[in-house]
Amino acid sequence: MFRNATLPDGSRRDITVADGRITSFVEPAPGPGIDLGGALVLPPLVDGHIHLDKTLLGLPWVPNQAAGNRVADRIEAERRVRAGRAVAETETGANLVKQVLASGTLHMRTHVDIDNQLGLKNLHAVLAIRERFRGLATIEIVAFPQSGIVRSPGTAALLDEAVAAGADLVGGLDPVGIDGDLEGHLDTIFAIASRRGAGIDIHLHDGGEGGIAEIDAIARRTKALDLAGNVAISHAFALGSVPTDLAARTADTLAAAGIAIMTHGPGAATMPPVPLLKEHGVEVFSGSDNIRDAWSPFGNGDMLERAMMVGYRANFRHDHELALAFELVTAAPARVLGLADYGLKVGGTADFVVVDSATVPEAVATRPRRKLVVKAGRVIARDGVLV
Amino acid sequence: MFRNATLPDGSRRDITVADGRITSFVEPAPGPGIDLGGALVLPPLVDGHIHLDKTLLGLPWVPNQAAGNRVADRIEAERRVRAGRAVAETETGANLVKQVLASGTLHMRTHVDIDNQLGLKNLHAVLAIRERFRGLATIEIVAFPQSGIVRSPGTAALLDEAVAAGADLVGGLDPVGIDGDLEGHLDTIFAIASRRGAGIDIHLHDGGEGGIAEIDAIARRTKALDLAGNVAISHAFALGSVPTDLAARTADTLAAAGIAIMTHGPGAATMPPVPLLKEHGVEVFSGSDNIRDAWSPFGNGDMLERAMMVGYRANFRHDHELALAFELVTAAPARVLGLADYGLKVGGTADFVVVDSATVPEAVATRPRRKLVVKAGRVIARDGVLV
Repeated sequence: MFRNATLPDGSRRDITVADGRITSFVEPAPGPGIDLGGALVLPPLVDGHIHLDKTLLGLPWVPNQAAGNRVADRIEAERRVRAGRAVAETETGANLVKQVLASGTLHMRTHVDIDNQLGLKNLHAVLAIRERFRGLATIEIVAFPQSGIVRSPGTAALLDEAVAAGADLVGGLDPVGIDGDLEGHLDTIFAIASRRGAGIDIHLHDGGEGGIAEIDAIARRTKALDLAGNVAISHAFALGSVPTDLAARTADTLAAAGIAIMTHGPGAATMPPVPLLKEHGVEVFSGSDNIRDAWSPFGNGDMLERAMMVGYRANFRHDHELALAFELVTAAPARVLGLADYGLKVGGTADFVVVDSATVPEAVATRPRRKLVVKAGRVIARDGVLV
Repeated sequence: MFRNATLPDGSRRDITVADGRITSFVEPAPGPGIDLGGALVLPPLVDGHIHLDKTLLGLPWVPNQAAGNRVADRIEAERRVRAGRAVAETETGANLVKQVLASGTLHMRTHVDIDNQLGLKNLHAVLAIRERFRGLATIEIVAFPQSGIVRSPGTAALLDEAVAAGADLVGGLDPVGIDGDLEGHLDTIFAIASRRGAGIDIHLHDGGEGGIAEIDAIARRTKALDLAGNVAISHAFALGSVPTDLAARTADTLAAAGIAIMTHGPGAATMPPVPLLKEHGVEVFSGSDNIRDAWSPFGNGDMLERAMMVGYRANFRHDHELALAFELVTAAPARVLGLADYGLKVGGTADFVVVDSATVPEAVATRPRRKLVVKAGRVIARDGVLV
């Protein structure tokens, strides 16, 4: 029993819990249980795009070593960092899972590097992490060809093996910008996804009309293979770098194909126009992306902070806009991950996050420390620290 | 005596203090004093652009009420919010000063709204705040014509009165975009600054080549009136929205005129190219800008977080870039504010901030809680809370 909760709609309720599920929301009354004192109760945060295997969290500071500012430079630098790693991905990745659990994230989609340097090493590390945190965190895995597919011999077979070994989705990476072979790249990943019954989540940094052409190609294959609802494009910077009418037409294409867009609120790159996409019926969700790794020194896995960053980059200021930013880190990625029991509802899992804010927009703007994180009715973190 | 400090250059030293000043940095040795345990000691943070009178900090959440997304819409909305204010600016502004002190900001430049609705009311509120926190915080005041000058009858005289009453600088606001009168706007503020011996800090949101033309006009007047080193342009979004060669030529103009540029790392607007400006010899500094006010729901006054935002928006990833972001919230605004005693040096005021980080770049990326804030040798905040 959790008493005196302020729900996102502003109502004050006691939340009754049995067998790890919410059984009712009732008028507050005195009695036993945890008194929340009117604090705001939020559904758990969901990270739609994280890289558990890349993070160097817990290691002494590792300066960025990329020789230049291209994606290809960062790929090369990461291959060097990986080779010199003194601590296993199972440990740094677990550090990150603990940190995000303490911040209220209970579900995540992680991309895992698969290439001809690593083979399936990182996949096995993340499978071990998933096993270790089973019951606390839902971890969906994307087999991500970080070094490309066509340009990186052997990767196609590794992606297929990865899905057989436990990855839930097939990833991709700039079919043109990295692989220089739109058809070859997409043929490979759609074939694996179709054959194995897996979803798809493609990193697409390529901008401008070229990037839009890649989105169109992804949409054509998604429709042809009847994969609506199982395909996402991460970043999709192109949508923010073309004229509005082309972005709108592309939004219609995405909505018709059932493709979701992930944005983390990029720092310097152009950002997909979130309100326009929503108006056209496109599912949009958010994620942390890189967190203290060979790609970025920034990030901490706090999805309330991520909602703020997305809102800040999207010029959101009004409450309905901040509420949309919140949806991007809660209900939207929950839909994309297919979390049936998600949300503050009778019958749903008793998962929630408690903060000292009056409203959801205030929580997004101020990103207060998490007073409590509750998983299946049990307090797992208090004041930002796992218990 | 503060023992076992890690200095920004990585060396480990004891810091001796007498009469509020640093008297030496010596090899660590056992003895009395505060043991910092190897924590990183940073110079105090400096906020080059804050709005102490605008913030609604400490009030219940106030949703943004602007009817549209133009600067003019936000000006109108703020005039309504001001009129409905239940708590005085002296109180909300003091709330903000306390919050920034606890985060390690000991010096700031605040803009204060001056217009024909307010008269000098907000100036007097901020003068009272300055007096209240004398000895703890340096507060430089810009008389800021938030509703324009030419379009807002009576404002020119109010700006002049404001400087006579204690404001240190004259502000400005989009001479073309808001006032529609480049010459009239600039003539007014440069005349006041010249006559009163005050500095100038102009808000310039106007983008594109039009914005560049305004920068050129400001530079011409700065040279003509011999105001090099006393003029700043805040935001200067135009520098990030024109081709690189034009931005570079304008940087040369700014450097020759001795005009500094303030960027807060805007969310959706284009950002001045910080490395290019620095390469061309332009002083660049940072500030919080709006903090929970009628303009923005975001912001908290933490200048380490601001350095992160500037770095994130500028695509900074390498350590030397993160160090530059740090300079923008410390030494650079200290130079702009003319703080002679600033910095970790023998003879300087014993002001500093202690954090659990190994290096300055790590502190920018992770923005750790401030373990200690020290003002003139006295601990004024511990673990993020004023003592």
